[in-house]
Amino acid sequence: MSRLLAELGAIVGPEGCLSRDEELFAYECDGLTLHTARPSAVVFPRAREQVQAIVRCCRSHGVPFVARGAGTGLSGGAIALGGGVVVECSRMNRVLAIEPVDRFAVVEPGVVNQDLSRAAAPFGLFYAPDPSSQLVCTIGGNVAENSGGPHTLKYGTTANHVLGLELVLPDGEVVELGGPTGAAPGYDLVGAVVGSEGTLGIVTRATLRLSPIPERVETLLAIFSDVVSACRTVSGIIEAGLVPAALEIVDQRTIRAVEASVYAAGLPTDAGAVLLIELDGPAVALPPQIERIRRLAQGAGALRIEVARDAKERQRFWRARKGAFGAMGRLAPDLYVHDAVVPRARLPEVLAAVCAIGDRYGLRLSNVFHAGDGNLHPNISFDRRDPGELERVMEAGAEILRACVEAGGVISGEHGIGSEKREYMGLVFSDADLGAMLRLRGAFDPDGVCNPGKIFPTTRFCAESNPKARGYDRVPFA
Amino acid sequence: MSRLLAELGAIVGPEGCLSRDEELFAYECDGLTLHTARPSAVVFPRAREQVQAIVRCCRSHGVPFVARGAGTGLSGGAIALGGGVVVECSRMNRVLAIEPVDRFAVVEPGVVNQDLSRAAAPFGLFYAPDPSSQLVCTIGGNVAENSGGPHTLKYGTTANHVLGLELVLPDGEVVELGGPTGAAPGYDLVGAVVGSEGTLGIVTRATLRLSPIPERVETLLAIFSDVVSACRTVSGIIEAGLVPAALEIVDQRTIRAVEASVYAAGLPTDAGAVLLIELDGPAVALPPQIERIRRLAQGAGALRIEVARDAKERQRFWRARKGAFGAMGRLAPDLYVHDAVVPRARLPEVLAAVCAIGDRYGLRLSNVFHAGDGNLHPNISFDRRDPGELERVMEAGAEILRACVEAGGVISGEHGIGSEKREYMGLVFSDADLGAMLRLRGAFDPDGVCNPGKIFPTTRFCAESNPKARGYDRVPFA
Repeated sequence: MSRLLAELGAIVGPEGCLSRDEELFAYECDGLTLHTARPSAVVFPRAREQVQAIVRCCRSHGVPFVARGAGTGLSGGAIALGGGVVVECSRMNRVLAIEPVDRFAVVEPGVVNQDLSRAAAPFGLFYAPDPSSQLVCTIGGNVAENSGGPHTLKYGTTANHVLGLELVLPDGEVVELGGPTGAAPGYDLVGAVVGSEGTLGIVTRATLRLSPIPERVETLLAIFSDVVSACRTVSGIIEAGLVPAALEIVDQRTIRAVEASVYAAGLPTDAGAVLLIELDGPAVALPPQIERIRRLAQGAGALRIEVARDAKERQRFWRARKGAFGAMGRLAPDLYVHDAVVPRARLPEVLAAVCAIGDRYGLRLSNVFHAGDGNLHPNISFDRRDPGELERVMEAGAEILRACVEAGGVISGEHGIGSEKREYMGLVFSDADLGAMLRLRGAFDPDGVCNPGKIFPTTRFCAESNPKARGYDRVPFA
Repeated sequence: MSRLLAELGAIVGPEGCLSRDEELFAYECDGLTLHTARPSAVVFPRAREQVQAIVRCCRSHGVPFVARGAGTGLSGGAIALGGGVVVECSRMNRVLAIEPVDRFAVVEPGVVNQDLSRAAAPFGLFYAPDPSSQLVCTIGGNVAENSGGPHTLKYGTTANHVLGLELVLPDGEVVELGGPTGAAPGYDLVGAVVGSEGTLGIVTRATLRLSPIPERVETLLAIFSDVVSACRTVSGIIEAGLVPAALEIVDQRTIRAVEASVYAAGLPTDAGAVLLIELDGPAVALPPQIERIRRLAQGAGALRIEVARDAKERQRFWRARKGAFGAMGRLAPDLYVHDAVVPRARLPEVLAAVCAIGDRYGLRLSNVFHAGDGNLHPNISFDRRDPGELERVMEAGAEILRACVEAGGVISGEHGIGSEKREYMGLVFSDADLGAMLRLRGAFDPDGVCNPGKIFPTTRFCAESNPKARGYDRVPFA
């Protein structure tokens, strides 16, 4: 180990390598605090060549490695299961180019999501994917997790905005995938790498699509006596052929938590649900859309519909949505933010099932969700010190995932699988489906040293499909 | 061979299997008539189980197989190089489901592109990718080639509209990739399969995103004295933050060919170029966009700008664009339709270079192109019976590709690599980049029996990277 540390120190300089226990503590978990694993070392490369040297060094020592951005991920994707080297990319944070005519940017992986939009703004452009953590999360992590956000409905996830990647493969080779024109002959490995949760290599550069800043944004807040009517409005809007930028629902339990917190947005606590609708586009196009949505919401039983008069009011509307996690987090020491997707048409029944599951386990569960995408986020506030509470949270979580899958959904919308949900992959995928993914993994990381223990279940199945795989299936976590 | 034929006949029925020379003739080439190869047999499966049985049968006989749709591809992707079984999917042509609330369709691979939009129309929806061959080409082929079309600028290519695939792998295993919610945990193999030109398996079912039919469409035709001004207008429109549905340029040589043909659209034959601009969206949003574009075009030197008054006039405008291939094809017995992409900002210089190359080789070369995407289509009319003409066409084509790559572009925008451009992959990709693709191929088709001889160059490099590969690099074509 000391030789490994000496070699890593020689690559990144002594100030770029942490190895003392008190330094490593901060890298034991990411946004999923339930899963922890202490790395052997954390290194901070400044350039592709250093990433390449780190990967080669780790391999020569037979030590796994894990790329990490800001550590805001919610599925335990950025922890070094079983120990290993964390490659922290925050020092690779330069915006290398912005091309306004061809509308793309070239960035290093440590660039903070919102900083890219800020850099593009003078050209009338922005970077569309907007995960809730966009003030701190980095492009490298967004690429790894294929991050979405409230505006995924109109703009798509990260995958829709990555044109090219420079990647250090698990054997230290550097490849360039895709490119600025967006057209890429041969296999689309960009698509395969986006969302691969850091298991196929380490991204050292990304070419990203920039979008024109819309001329006008309008934000509406519709208040309903029950969540079913809010869902019906969402379906009505989609069926009418409208494409809002965002359609977000906050349920009654969340409203009450928010209104009792510092995030209070003046919402009626007896409301059953609020629906936040954001429209963007040419200024003249929005008033008729607002009118159609108003009629659709009224037809579905909306009690009240407000249109934000200015930026301040828009912020107040969004506060109810964006403060949900914070408000729920204040109710108890621990918060579990779930993530699953169901077909939009099945939202009302699945929500009822999710609430019933929470009640059955006696848990404080509330829902905020990207309704337009059918992307649910049930939040559970709890205290792991209470005997049996953590077990009930985990069992309820498993039941929620099962309910979503039974409704035709999947077990993750934007948080990824990581260490959190690897045992649930069998709910959605057959052995053959998982086997196809493992073929890809085996082709790039035959020894299983690149972020091992993530995505794939720890079943006999995996060991059998990949006799050569060392790391996939035997890595424990605390 | 006769045992193979007997087994194939048992799978698909005798009327579903062609093997006589005069029957196979029609399957010797696809839209790229320069490359020919006669298959050993052509089979017409009706269901996934039959595709699976065909694949297993071919493997057991050590015979390669090639999926084929309507055969409209332009890069030789659907021919059986070195002989082999063509799996013709036209009988698998059912639209299995259309889901208006969740906006997706489930189809078999033999569904004709335009038939899907027709089936979706009663729900106010359409399937956005619109290759020029959409009246006959099929979804399976569109998926294989990641087909684009004139409206790629706004709507993206096929990859942006495929949510899920059912695939028979080269070993006969069936996997389901992705799904209707569009969210797919684990690796995005859908993205890797779209555009893989039939080399990773045979698609037996596709789940496709449907889009709302826009409320209004407006089509403009701007006439310029030279192509540089038309390109400058395109850049200006993009820089202004406008997102037209299509931005197509037809150059002077094409205008003259069109006006001298049955496709005549009343264009001035002394014009240097015409720019076709299509806008779609909410009705009220379009007039201000038309005004902005009019000012931009006038500022760039447009001689005249017309707005189509009705559907008939819109068709006339498009005739100049859509008739280009036909008109050029009538000038000589052979037509070579090229395909390459350059960054939009580099269009004027690359066009000049392309025309100079054509002139230097004494060829009849004209350009129509998806200017908004930087996707060039130089067309060369020629007669392969003239001594030396074919060689000049091929040499000019190579020079054109090199010029595009030197300008930061790539060697294919939407036609794929196929057998046509495999030797040019080295212009865009390093050995490491190609090696990464071959790792994927090797993981799914280690013996190289699934559409062999396509995409990858026949160099020593490939044989070395894949010692097990039998078919990739040694397959000749006529």
